[in-house]
Amino acid sequence: MRTQAQPLSGFMELLPAQQAEFDRIKQVIARAHHSFGFSNIDLPLIYRREVLLAKAGGDTEKQIYQLEKGDTKLALRFDHTVPLAAYVAGNQGNLTFPFKASQIGKNYRGERPQKGRFREFYQCDADVIGRGALDLAYDAEVIAIIWAIYKELNLGDFTIRIANRKLLTGFLQALEIGQGMPKIMHLIDNAEKITTDGLDAELRSLSLNDAQIATIQNFIKLADGRSNEQVLESLETLSTKIGADQNQASEFKVGLNELWSVQKTLRQMGITDCVKIDPMIVRGLDYYTGTVFETILNSHPEFGSIASGGRYDNLASNYSAEKFPGVGCSIGLSRLFAALTENNLTQNSSTPTADILVLPFSENEREFSFNLAARLRAQTKKPVNILLQPWKFNKKMEYAGKSGAKHLVVIGEQEVATGQVNIKDLQTGKETSLDSFLA
Amino acid sequence: MRTQAQPLSGFMELLPAQQAEFDRIKQVIARAHHSFGFSNIDLPLIYRREVLLAKAGGDTEKQIYQLEKGDTKLALRFDHTVPLAAYVAGNQGNLTFPFKASQIGKNYRGERPQKGRFREFYQCDADVIGRGALDLAYDAEVIAIIWAIYKELNLGDFTIRIANRKLLTGFLQALEIGQGMPKIMHLIDNAEKITTDGLDAELRSLSLNDAQIATIQNFIKLADGRSNEQVLESLETLSTKIGADQNQASEFKVGLNELWSVQKTLRQMGITDCVKIDPMIVRGLDYYTGTVFETILNSHPEFGSIASGGRYDNLASNYSAEKFPGVGCSIGLSRLFAALTENNLTQNSSTPTADILVLPFSENEREFSFNLAARLRAQTKKPVNILLQPWKFNKKMEYAGKSGAKHLVVIGEQEVATGQVNIKDLQTGKETSLDSFLA
Repeated sequence: MRTQAQPLSGFMELLPAQQAEFDRIKQVIARAHHSFGFSNIDLPLIYRREVLLAKAGGDTEKQIYQLEKGDTKLALRFDHTVPLAAYVAGNQGNLTFPFKASQIGKNYRGERPQKGRFREFYQCDADVIGRGALDLAYDAEVIAIIWAIYKELNLGDFTIRIANRKLLTGFLQALEIGQGMPKIMHLIDNAEKITTDGLDAELRSLSLNDAQIATIQNFIKLADGRSNEQVLESLETLSTKIGADQNQASEFKVGLNELWSVQKTLRQMGITDCVKIDPMIVRGLDYYTGTVFETILNSHPEFGSIASGGRYDNLASNYSAEKFPGVGCSIGLSRLFAALTENNLTQNSSTPTADILVLPFSENEREFSFNLAARLRAQTKKPVNILLQPWKFNKKMEYAGKSGAKHLVVIGEQEVATGQVNIKDLQTGKETSLDSFLA
Repeated sequence: MRTQAQPLSGFMELLPAQQAEFDRIKQVIARAHHSFGFSNIDLPLIYRREVLLAKAGGDTEKQIYQLEKGDTKLALRFDHTVPLAAYVAGNQGNLTFPFKASQIGKNYRGERPQKGRFREFYQCDADVIGRGALDLAYDAEVIAIIWAIYKELNLGDFTIRIANRKLLTGFLQALEIGQGMPKIMHLIDNAEKITTDGLDAELRSLSLNDAQIATIQNFIKLADGRSNEQVLESLETLSTKIGADQNQASEFKVGLNELWSVQKTLRQMGITDCVKIDPMIVRGLDYYTGTVFETILNSHPEFGSIASGGRYDNLASNYSAEKFPGVGCSIGLSRLFAALTENNLTQNSSTPTADILVLPFSENEREFSFNLAARLRAQTKKPVNILLQPWKFNKKMEYAGKSGAKHLVVIGEQEVATGQVNIKDLQTGKETSLDSFLA
């Protein structure tokens, strides 16, 4: 009796050529993290359930994969944040702060499987964690990382939309809306999905008056068609209008000053394109406390944001009395890859197997072929495959065609006798002598 | 109330510098796999329980991490073999055979935690899978991969001990021992741990006669102090003695011929040191059917074998009617790393964070510093960190010392005014101009 071998729904399984392209993108992300001075950390996938649930709420808790071992209730991690928080709290005496951590690994959420959503998914996070305080310039740095990655991946025009959570909460505080606030924040977070009239009706149903509704509708459209500096100036004007500028410590004013600062630092970094200040960005209601950002591909807004992040006041409040403010960026690699694949935006150049294939004609040419393969590996630094099956020549050539190799070296009696070897470019069909290939 | 943040027992958590060294070793292994033409595949960690249990038996089944999601009974993978078997069976139409697969990832076994044993552990596997038949030369190739990795890791003298499972079973068949065979195989597998007298008594208790016991004792010592060719010759002699050479198809004779062939291919590959033919190697009783091998560090035999592997007749018998013979090598990276760390055999040169640290004196030097960091990244390809905290100079220098950076660039008013920048080697204390550093 045979068992079904296909993977579970929501679990990605790639053929070697797809995997090579996936790995190439993962490498671009890892190198970008590393080039900005982030250290890789590779944390456990399993934690005590209470550790993971300390931060999870609502949907996340329902989606968590639970397991048991003896009496210990365990769960699989659903993001990199909880493991990082536990790690920073547990190792604070041995880490240098600001601690810059790169985490590229699998996470698990038992979501209802749907297109582009995975239950096992790669998340690629870069976080800067301060001890006590963390300069706002790091908010710009994690945005710069996303910018650098999207530029290098060459995915076409993209927009990183940046806001500050304090602006929105400060704005709603100033409007004195009271208990309707969470609901209104949710509405604003989803404002792109409803019409102006729809939003109007929704706000009216929350007993807001005409003036409040008009102010909110203005706020939502504030970024439309304006440059970043114009948006910030409009927010200054709004600040005066809602009375926030009379108090520099007001939530709105603090958020606005932070946003000016992030914008200024990005300019200092030379980042002047692909960044759009848009006070509408919320990124969920619980976690972030300052800067928030998300990224869309201009020609594929339907992918949604696959690279996002923001600032949080205290990473490890559940595990430590010390305060660890942080800011991070995260790329949903599995979702990104699925979206790119579906739209034929991946590159086909990633070689799944070896660049060079050595093909000994018979067993008599093996020793020569092994030596040649070793020499090619050492001198070209390219992967070299050698076919060792005792097949007829035609079948060997069929393998050569299917293997994905870019170069082919056939070794027969004559090559062994003379030592003269040619290497064939399988794309152009052109043959060159090994000596000139290696030169 | 705060939650305990330390990792679960049996789960490895490394500080950034240790992690960098771990990643370096992992890279050496991955590059070796790739250089021999193996394609990376990154398979799910979670499978239907029935899929995993189809091959697991005894201890493994007890150690498996089980989980549930809705009505589906799931489990975490405990090795790379079952996922590979399911993958090959499920994708056979889209793979090119012999299919060379590299798998480097985490696996899970709920073993009783003990020194050097982990419940979450990295396993690094390279497998060649044939369809129908697979040439014996691939057995030598996977041994050559372990050889290349151990040489490159520079771990000191090591020995790859090679045997063939058919030799031992054929030998015991020829002795006509009958139903005592599994017990005797287990004794022979553990013969290194008991004395000659102890083994004698054990064999006697299994009702073996003097002649049989003498033959077994001779077999066990057959490799002692002999060269590989001498061992193979002694096995030929033994073959005559036990009557196996009258039948070329006898289990013993087939195993011996395979061993000759693997030895010959290794020589053709130029592998003449660090390899020892030793018919005593068993590597468990169920899985392997031909070539088996394991690797010990000569100065640390107590680590046991951390790199091993062998030949199996049929990878995917549980999932497909087609026959997929394979041969693979596997390195227990977490165990290897723990053993190396404990014996101070790891290198301290792995940089956890950035190679170059740029330290702007104040906010006024930031823009210049950002430009410099970008230029250094582009021209040196090295990771470049920039400290953005608004700290006093002393605290900044303290960070520089602790950060692990090898080079330091301090940017003050003067550097911005003149454009003249020096870079300091933090190990030698020597300063050079940026221009000569980049030249």
